[in-house]
Amino acid sequence: MSLPSRQAYVPFVSVDNMMRLVLHVGIEQMMVELAAVIEADFRRWPDFDKTPRVASHSDIGVIELMPTSDGQHYGFKYVNGHPGNMRQGLQTVTAFGVLADVPTGYPLLISEMTILTALRTAATSAMAAKWLAPRDARVMAMIGNGAQAEFQALAMKAVCGIREVRLYDIDPAAVRKCAANLAGRGLHVVHCHSAEEAILGAQIITTCTADKQYATILSDNMVGAGVHINAVGGDCPGKTELHRDILLRAGIFVEYPPQTRVEGEIQQLDPDHPVTELWQVIAGESAGRVAADQITLFDSVGFAVEDFSALRHIYQRMQGTSFYQDLDMIADPDDPRDLFGMLGRAGTQDKVA
Amino acid sequence: MSLPSRQAYVPFVSVDNMMRLVLHVGIEQMMVELAAVIEADFRRWPDFDKTPRVASHSDIGVIELMPTSDGQHYGFKYVNGHPGNMRQGLQTVTAFGVLADVPTGYPLLISEMTILTALRTAATSAMAAKWLAPRDARVMAMIGNGAQAEFQALAMKAVCGIREVRLYDIDPAAVRKCAANLAGRGLHVVHCHSAEEAILGAQIITTCTADKQYATILSDNMVGAGVHINAVGGDCPGKTELHRDILLRAGIFVEYPPQTRVEGEIQQLDPDHPVTELWQVIAGESAGRVAADQITLFDSVGFAVEDFSALRHIYQRMQGTSFYQDLDMIADPDDPRDLFGMLGRAGTQDKVA
Repeated sequence: MSLPSRQAYVPFVSVDNMMRLVLHVGIEQMMVELAAVIEADFRRWPDFDKTPRVASHSDIGVIELMPTSDGQHYGFKYVNGHPGNMRQGLQTVTAFGVLADVPTGYPLLISEMTILTALRTAATSAMAAKWLAPRDARVMAMIGNGAQAEFQALAMKAVCGIREVRLYDIDPAAVRKCAANLAGRGLHVVHCHSAEEAILGAQIITTCTADKQYATILSDNMVGAGVHINAVGGDCPGKTELHRDILLRAGIFVEYPPQTRVEGEIQQLDPDHPVTELWQVIAGESAGRVAADQITLFDSVGFAVEDFSALRHIYQRMQGTSFYQDLDMIADPDDPRDLFGMLGRAGTQDKVA
Repeated sequence: MSLPSRQAYVPFVSVDNMMRLVLHVGIEQMMVELAAVIEADFRRWPDFDKTPRVASHSDIGVIELMPTSDGQHYGFKYVNGHPGNMRQGLQTVTAFGVLADVPTGYPLLISEMTILTALRTAATSAMAAKWLAPRDARVMAMIGNGAQAEFQALAMKAVCGIREVRLYDIDPAAVRKCAANLAGRGLHVVHCHSAEEAILGAQIITTCTADKQYATILSDNMVGAGVHINAVGGDCPGKTELHRDILLRAGIFVEYPPQTRVEGEIQQLDPDHPVTELWQVIAGESAGRVAADQITLFDSVGFAVEDFSALRHIYQRMQGTSFYQDLDMIADPDDPRDLFGMLGRAGTQDKVA
C-alpha cells in the first residue's frame, strides 16, 4: 500500500491562517501586493474566460458561483448574500474559493474568502483610484462604516497616499468602531456627523452602505467638480447609493459591463449609456480622467478576475509558510482504473495509517 | 475573545473518511440508500432550479461546476475531465462538492466527490434499470471494466437483483482487476473475450468505456429485442459508444434533455428526436418500458440533481459519526460589521488559542 501522492492533497487556508498570513505580511503591504496583481490581471483582461456570475436566487438571498480562467489557472468563488443574516448574528456575506490547474484540472488551493474578499475589494478600489482620482488626493470621505470601511481606508492610504479619512455612518456606533480600528495606523481620522460634513475637502468619496434599496447616499448638489467617487455599496439589482443625476455628470468606469449594467449604480441609466471598462484605461486603450474638474466614478460591483488574482496571490504567498493545512480531498488510487480496489482495501488500512 | 460559533465551521468529508463511511454503511447498502434518495429527488424534479453545467474548456480538458437547488438546500460539484491525466498517473476525473443552506447561504458540508460520484453514477444507473429493465433481469453484461465497473455491478445486484455479471474490456488486465475486486461479493462473475460473448443471455447491457471518440462498442445486430441498455460512457461532446441504428430502435430515457442532447448518445440524432425524461416515468407522467420486446436505453450523462441527492445523503449519514472533520472556513466576527477588528486582534490570540 502506498500513501496518497502529493497531488491528492489540496492546501487549505482557514480563516485563522488567512488572518495570520495577512498579519505576517502586514495589512497595508498585502493591499499593495493585491492591488498590483489585480492591476496586472486587468492589463491582460482579454486573456480571461469571462462570464457573469451564476446565481441561485431565493426570496431572502442569493448564492453565487464566480468562475474565471486565464488558460493556465482556473478559479471560482462561492459567495452568498443574505441581508437578513445579521439579525441572527450571522454574516451577510460569506465566501470561499478554489484555485485549480487548467492542464490537469486538479485543485491547487481552497481558501476562506470572506476576509480575502474584503481585502481584494479594497485593493481594487485603491487600484482604480490610483488611475482615476486627482493625483494629489490626500483626503477621503468614507460614507458607510461597516465591515468594508477600514479595509478601504487602509488600501487608499497604502496605494494612493491618502492621509485623512472622514468617517460617516447613520449609526454612530459604526463610526466609533471604525475610528477605533483605525487609531494608531497613521491616518488622521475625523468623526463626522453628516455625509455633507464627511465630504468637505475630500478628493475621493467612497460610499459603502448596506441597505438593499434604491438609496441616495449622495445627492447631486453634494458632489463638487474634480472628485473621484468610489461607489462600492451599490452591487446588486435594486441596490444603489448615488442619485442618478450624479451619474449623468460623471465619467463612469466599470469592471465588466454585462454584470455592472445589472448590479451597479448604472442600473439606473439607459442600457447603452457610455461607460469605460477600467482594464482599457490600464492597458492604455482608453483615457482615464480627462480633466481636473471631471467627476470620475468607479462603479464597483466586484468581478471574478479580482478573486482569481487574490487566490493566485495567496497561493504564491503561502508557499514555504505554515499558514495552510493539507486536505485529503482527491482520491488517488495507485492504478487510476482501480478506484473500487482503493475503497475495498480502505477498511484494512487502519493498522498502518 | 470568544471562540468561533458553530456556524463558522464547515464539516469536511475527506477521501479517507468517505471510504470509512461507505465501508461502515456497507457498499451495497449505500447503493440502495443512494438509489432511494436520487429516486425521491427525481420524483419531485420540478422543485429543482436546473441549469446545464458551467464548463470551462481548454485544449486538453474541461473544468465544470454543476449547481442546483431545491429552495431549501443548494449544492454544487466541481469536476474536471482530463483524458491525458492517466499518462501522468493522475485521475481523469476528480471531484468535490458543497452543500449549503439556502435560508442563510452558509455552507453545511464540503466533501470529496470522486468516490461519491462513482457511487451516485452507479446508483442512478440501477435506479433507472429498476424502472426500465425487464422485471426478471438477472444477468448483466459489463462492457468497459474501468473505474466505474465494479460500482455498476454491485449497484445492479443490490437494487435490481442481478446475479451474474459478464465482464469484457479490450484490455484483459482491466477484466482481471474487475473480476478480482468482485470476487466473494455474491455475484457470478464471467470473464468474457469479446463484447458479443459478454452480452449472451444478458437482460441488461452496461457500456462504460473511456475513449473520447465516436466509438461503436455495440453495433446494431448485437442488440436483441427486450434488453435494457445502460449507456454510461458516452457523456461528452464527441464521445459516444452505441451505433446510431440502435438508438433509432430504442425507447430513449434521459436525465435533462438540454444537457443530454449535447453530451449523450443522442448527440448522434436530430435535436428533436423524441426522448423521455426519466423523472416523468418515476412521477407517473410518462410510460417506461411499454413492451417485453422493447429495447430501452438509459442515455446517462450525469446531472447535478444526482450530486445534490448524494451530498444531502452524506450530510445525513455522517451526523453523529466521526467520519468528518470541522474546517474553520467561515469568518465569524462577534460583531458582523467588525471584520477588520477580528483580523486586527488575530495577532494577539496566539497565547490563548
